[in-house]
Amino acid sequence: MIIQSEITPKHSLSNFFEPGRIGVIGLLREGFFGGLVVIKTLLRNGFSGEIYPVNPSYKEILGLKVYPSIKDVPAPVDLVLIITGNRAVPHILRECGEKGVRAAIVVSDGFAERDEEGAKLQKEIVEIGRQWGIRILGPNTAGIANPSKGVLPNPYELGYERLKPGGVALCGQTGMINPQAFPYGDLGYGVSKICDFGNKCDVDECDLMEYLEEDSDTKVIALYLEGIRDGRRFMEVGRRVQKKKPILILKSGRTEEGAKATSSHTGALAVKDQIFDGVCKQAGLLRLDSFGELFELPKIFSHQPLPKGNRLGIVTFTGGVGVLAVDEATRYGLRPTILTRRTIRELSSIYPNLGKPIIDLGPPMAALRDYISIYPKILRAVLKDENVDCLFNVIWTGPTQTFLEEYLRIYRQLKEINQKTVATWVYGPKVSLIQELTFGLEELGFPVFKDLEKAIKALGLASHYSVLKRREER
Amino acid sequence: MIIQSEITPKHSLSNFFEPGRIGVIGLLREGFFGGLVVIKTLLRNGFSGEIYPVNPSYKEILGLKVYPSIKDVPAPVDLVLIITGNRAVPHILRECGEKGVRAAIVVSDGFAERDEEGAKLQKEIVEIGRQWGIRILGPNTAGIANPSKGVLPNPYELGYERLKPGGVALCGQTGMINPQAFPYGDLGYGVSKICDFGNKCDVDECDLMEYLEEDSDTKVIALYLEGIRDGRRFMEVGRRVQKKKPILILKSGRTEEGAKATSSHTGALAVKDQIFDGVCKQAGLLRLDSFGELFELPKIFSHQPLPKGNRLGIVTFTGGVGVLAVDEATRYGLRPTILTRRTIRELSSIYPNLGKPIIDLGPPMAALRDYISIYPKILRAVLKDENVDCLFNVIWTGPTQTFLEEYLRIYRQLKEINQKTVATWVYGPKVSLIQELTFGLEELGFPVFKDLEKAIKALGLASHYSVLKRREER
Repeated sequence: MIIQSEITPKHSLSNFFEPGRIGVIGLLREGFFGGLVVIKTLLRNGFSGEIYPVNPSYKEILGLKVYPSIKDVPAPVDLVLIITGNRAVPHILRECGEKGVRAAIVVSDGFAERDEEGAKLQKEIVEIGRQWGIRILGPNTAGIANPSKGVLPNPYELGYERLKPGGVALCGQTGMINPQAFPYGDLGYGVSKICDFGNKCDVDECDLMEYLEEDSDTKVIALYLEGIRDGRRFMEVGRRVQKKKPILILKSGRTEEGAKATSSHTGALAVKDQIFDGVCKQAGLLRLDSFGELFELPKIFSHQPLPKGNRLGIVTFTGGVGVLAVDEATRYGLRPTILTRRTIRELSSIYPNLGKPIIDLGPPMAALRDYISIYPKILRAVLKDENVDCLFNVIWTGPTQTFLEEYLRIYRQLKEINQKTVATWVYGPKVSLIQELTFGLEELGFPVFKDLEKAIKALGLASHYSVLKRREER
Repeated sequence: MIIQSEITPKHSLSNFFEPGRIGVIGLLREGFFGGLVVIKTLLRNGFSGEIYPVNPSYKEILGLKVYPSIKDVPAPVDLVLIITGNRAVPHILRECGEKGVRAAIVVSDGFAERDEEGAKLQKEIVEIGRQWGIRILGPNTAGIANPSKGVLPNPYELGYERLKPGGVALCGQTGMINPQAFPYGDLGYGVSKICDFGNKCDVDECDLMEYLEEDSDTKVIALYLEGIRDGRRFMEVGRRVQKKKPILILKSGRTEEGAKATSSHTGALAVKDQIFDGVCKQAGLLRLDSFGELFELPKIFSHQPLPKGNRLGIVTFTGGVGVLAVDEATRYGLRPTILTRRTIRELSSIYPNLGKPIIDLGPPMAALRDYISIYPKILRAVLKDENVDCLFNVIWTGPTQTFLEEYLRIYRQLKEINQKTVATWVYGPKVSLIQELTFGLEELGFPVFKDLEKAIKALGLASHYSVLKRREER
């Protein structure tokens, strides 16, 4: 196996994420997939560089001149996307090499994931890449995104206008992280970079972690892996990068059956799960358990400060959720806090019996007409308690808009004073109210989680990472 | 501890779920909580019986005469809701006894969940209930629902019009299952019965399972428990009822910390989790792991036929999800199927290389302009394969409405011919499209799950229950 990146200088990936000139080679017909979509999406997202469509059957498209070959483009090209039949790829890559292109995203499928013949073809393009010094992402990839630079060469139509820049880098061997597969737009979910490795014939998670290590947009790295190519390098790079930013990993092929399925998906070699687990522990990488977690859990790192300890405050509208939260907290190394006597007194002066380990707003909510007026006092009392490192806050939306505005107002005030890690879970009788409050709170920098379990796990991971970091610093 | 129900005839709970005349005692002021909300919601949901508000400070409300005491009501009353301060409850209950009422929902809080004094008060109302033959639900409960009869005496405003009748009974020691806490309306989620036991001073999960055993609306029972009162009875009743309908259980207080928290929530005595697990296994009850599962997993039982075996077919738009699905399937006792040679041939004649264990629509979707035209053929081929007992189907919504209509059309056809268990997961770039397709597919009787993991687990539980059932029948 050729470890290309060992002979390539650092940041060889900047051609992918910060290209000035992009060539789009291949399929240009109308539809929800292809080069035409790439070009439209780049333009819509304010890509300020040059775009060169390449296809011998066209003369002009969207007002852009179309070139018969990449070699005809009258300027240097930083990045190409190749969206053609698999057999055309080697020839096109060679032309790119002659042209001096140093980065290629091979969207085309039909390589190692398909059959023997495809595997051979994949080997061939790896050779060509090495020969010409072209870094290759893919094949069989939906590509990358760098919204802060308007670089969104997505081959599938998005269904929404823009991708919001943010702190989470999402990377993996799947197009499921790309913007056509997840409602980033509707959720106001901000990403720093997206990178689908596809079959991972060249650019891999280690290259990417190294690139992201220095990327100032990225606050947290979330990785989906099916296998790793070079265990030692993975451990070295992972260990180094996680000192700067947390790395969260979901790995498939945990079971024997899953490992078998892996090899037919991206042709990845499976790693025994126990070994991989050991590697992650040693390198300080945080493992995830479900696909949803890949999107949800990074939010705690991109939005909130790290907790200084593992003592968890719980404010809820219902005792049952509090109990479930305690169970989960224990699972993830958090400790339900023992509030100081002062806080207990303060809470109980706000409403009788409120000063308990689980602060349950259910009773005052049912009893007081204007319960929401005591809510900010309660949150403030808990957050300023020296025994509280992080807070799980459960909000019932209520049946109408009125409540939402109050909650947003309260969180806006909270933002001014709060230094602790807050994870929120929102529930209620209307989907639209849940969505609206979620969106609003996240705009304020307070992540809202889809399940109570994910909220608690996010706090648990943040607390765990915080311990690792402090240990490093000593 | 008094086990009231042992001396009460079967179906003593029909007064709760099928009352003809309901008394609403206590709080009648405007607001999102209280008796006024109860009455409005009953009327809006088409409750056809009589409603008697009781409060000495009112004469008339919403055109209904208000009585100073339950004893002044000029007709027999089947069910009362009590929404007053905790100290007023014993007196009111005694009056209900004198009036001949046999069922009371005590919404009021401030009992065993609060303090010693509350615990005494709770003991007192249990005594009164026994003395007068009144079954008590609660205290500290948000009550019940029986949408097929318009019985929705919910003390919190819902935020939506109606609750749809369906096959799932949701019961537990939390108001989180009641209609003010979950968007049943928006999701088109159909329930047969809802029952919040609150502090569970009398009516408990055993009474309820016995009632639901004979309830023709209920196809599956989902329970949230913090503790059980009578282990032997729980095992006996559970074992008997699960022969007729599956029982899914989420139990909190799994950890020591959680168990401690439990006792301060509803005053429940905690059970060691290992013991509880053993009880569930022996009785054939299915345990759940997260709060979201309580709502999601029952859908497979209320909507779909039971699988005849554990062989899982997987159709996906992306290989990565297929691999994750295989991992999960293995966890839950499902086996990725080996398709018959005939099916493999048929699939590969539809599109090259499609006949693999994970049927990945990604390549044809990217290559074919009209990939959706081959989609029904693919689903049909898989579902008629004799080696397939159940199907995990992953759908990408696409970026526009057009795709949705196609998918709905295809599922509508599927409904006519399909006899296998189908769990669907929908993903895509727009929340509104995901919601719309989910709603549409569930209207057709095909449950859609929020995560891929929940979809697989639902199939796993269905397959497991199917095995238990066949074993019983032998």
